[in-house]
Amino acid sequence: MQTVGVIGGGQLARMMQPAAIALGINLAVFAESEGSSAHGAVTKVGDYTDLAQLREFAKDVDVITFDHEHVPTELLRQLEAEGVNVRPGPAALIHAQNKLVMRKKLAELGLPQPNWAEITSPQELEQFIGIHGPKIVVKTPIGGYDGKGVRVVSSAAEVSDWLENLESFGGSLLAEQKVDFLSEAAQLIARRPSGEAKTWPLVQTIQSGGVCSEVIAPYPSLSLSEPAADITHSIANGLGVTGVMAVEMFVLADGSLLVNELAMRPHNSGHFSIEGSNTSQFEQHLRAVLDLPLGDTGMRGGFAVMVNLLGVDDKNSFYEHYPTAMARYPSVSFHLYQKTARLGRKMGHLTVLGSNHEELLETGRKARSLIYGEA
Amino acid sequence: MQTVGVIGGGQLARMMQPAAIALGINLAVFAESEGSSAHGAVTKVGDYTDLAQLREFAKDVDVITFDHEHVPTELLRQLEAEGVNVRPGPAALIHAQNKLVMRKKLAELGLPQPNWAEITSPQELEQFIGIHGPKIVVKTPIGGYDGKGVRVVSSAAEVSDWLENLESFGGSLLAEQKVDFLSEAAQLIARRPSGEAKTWPLVQTIQSGGVCSEVIAPYPSLSLSEPAADITHSIANGLGVTGVMAVEMFVLADGSLLVNELAMRPHNSGHFSIEGSNTSQFEQHLRAVLDLPLGDTGMRGGFAVMVNLLGVDDKNSFYEHYPTAMARYPSVSFHLYQKTARLGRKMGHLTVLGSNHEELLETGRKARSLIYGEA
Repeated sequence: MQTVGVIGGGQLARMMQPAAIALGINLAVFAESEGSSAHGAVTKVGDYTDLAQLREFAKDVDVITFDHEHVPTELLRQLEAEGVNVRPGPAALIHAQNKLVMRKKLAELGLPQPNWAEITSPQELEQFIGIHGPKIVVKTPIGGYDGKGVRVVSSAAEVSDWLENLESFGGSLLAEQKVDFLSEAAQLIARRPSGEAKTWPLVQTIQSGGVCSEVIAPYPSLSLSEPAADITHSIANGLGVTGVMAVEMFVLADGSLLVNELAMRPHNSGHFSIEGSNTSQFEQHLRAVLDLPLGDTGMRGGFAVMVNLLGVDDKNSFYEHYPTAMARYPSVSFHLYQKTARLGRKMGHLTVLGSNHEELLETGRKARSLIYGEA
Repeated sequence: MQTVGVIGGGQLARMMQPAAIALGINLAVFAESEGSSAHGAVTKVGDYTDLAQLREFAKDVDVITFDHEHVPTELLRQLEAEGVNVRPGPAALIHAQNKLVMRKKLAELGLPQPNWAEITSPQELEQFIGIHGPKIVVKTPIGGYDGKGVRVVSSAAEVSDWLENLESFGGSLLAEQKVDFLSEAAQLIARRPSGEAKTWPLVQTIQSGGVCSEVIAPYPSLSLSEPAADITHSIANGLGVTGVMAVEMFVLADGSLLVNELAMRPHNSGHFSIEGSNTSQFEQHLRAVLDLPLGDTGMRGGFAVMVNLLGVDDKNSFYEHYPTAMARYPSVSFHLYQKTARLGRKMGHLTVLGSNHEELLETGRKARSLIYGEA
């Protein structure tokens, strides 16, 4: 019986637990603090930037994988050199940790992406704005997530704090064209070390303030399925990804796709798969990192709509209100992450299955309003 | 945030964990030994027939429920008298613990069941055989499960060991007509303390050697749905059941139903609901014992077929073989209970969803053969 070790004790590690229970394997979580969302599987609490602690954790597991992408690459390289199975390996993971490395690699692979440039000075940034402005996007190559480390600007002065601290981001910033998109999409894939890879159906993601708010699976227009899957297979193979990867994309008015971001772990855009797919992203991730055959990724029924529950303040942890939502919407699946309430924090999500995605989205949003205590 | 305490660390407690994770509640398991199937949620290892230990466990939980029906009724009555929420309560649970009490109650409720008699002597048994024989069924009222405590006999001599030890079974035996049935069925229901109750679709159960081997959900003939649900609601309400109850029934050639057995907890016949239903029996059980609104019990897609994995010897724990089955049958959902291999032991199960139940059953059986190392 094998043990998968997960670094990070957030909701992604939490949701790997049911998958581990089904597969009959052990899950061990290295959490950064007591009382984490994945507390039920935590075997170690400590500092994931400390090589000695990572080494100790690695001793008792068959493979190491991740709840987040913040473990320094050089530590993972060291563990790998010492014979630890790190999946995804640092050579692949770096593309999800560093957006500039990702952009360069996608260019090398000839994959569609927004116009971009590496920026090391205000002058370079002004030049980029001159060509692609008036508004462009500046990102810190490392350390950003959920809208953090991203700014829409029209002058270098608006990121002067970043430009003055380039060293903390690896020596440069990433400038990107501000894409005028029709909608956003995400393509999930899982890939095993032996090379087998399976995608789920492309999904539509609806963002709010830089955070995923809702997901419609599959993406209502089927014409994008093949190009999205092709791009995603190219990335997974080109980068040697193992485990689940999410490719976030912009959908343009002409139906073309541009790669926005990569995540190499189960991803918010794949939560629908717990109920909506024959194999959830969490189970597939465990299968993939253990090099077990991948499960079928077909949908169960027509559509699955996922609605995030974001903290409304520092008091409402949703328990008081969710019975009302359960009573009113018995077909909605509830997921609470047992996290302390905080404004904007990802506290849980809802999933609802059915044949009409617009109705499902309305149901999900109404159920969410009840949980937020709004109705 | 509430905590549900489960007495018993078997696969039923194990499979309550994913439901607790989704609902964002805590699960605490009182296991009888180290290394139980539900090890991931065990908070206490001890003796469930010791009132002091039960009391200590009860202190830290909001409600007590069960993985099995072996906790002595008088201890549960005592806990209840001390203010502990025991669900199902001992007044209901006794009907799943004592088959004679169950038969008497069903007779009182006017529900259909096989002919039966309470037996306190060889003479009474011979008389029953004279009327309902040549072959009849004798059961020990307490302590039987999975075919244990059940014998098909044609003379009192065949249960002389039981007749000589009547006191260990509560003073009498239960004799039942040997029913000539067409098939077997099970009806699951969940009921909250507040009275809300929901059934799942009736399922067909296929037994082998007194143990559940396969389940087809829904039962392929829909004409039985209403009478089965009516009987089950009558029992749930009549007995004041809280949590999930399974009513096992015989289906006769004329389409009538007779109640065979009751289980007051999630049940093998409901494992299909993890993937096949909008709300699994494990989640519904937790909702019910916490008096939360019950979830929708509609099927996801057409049929769900569940195939049990029973130990083939004391070596094959299925891990060696299940990759082969996964590769060949990617749409099958795998569940291993992390139990030590032993002949006939319930070690796991498989579920497969689709539109043709005969094909699903064949797929499930073929996948099982691979896991058994037969093919």
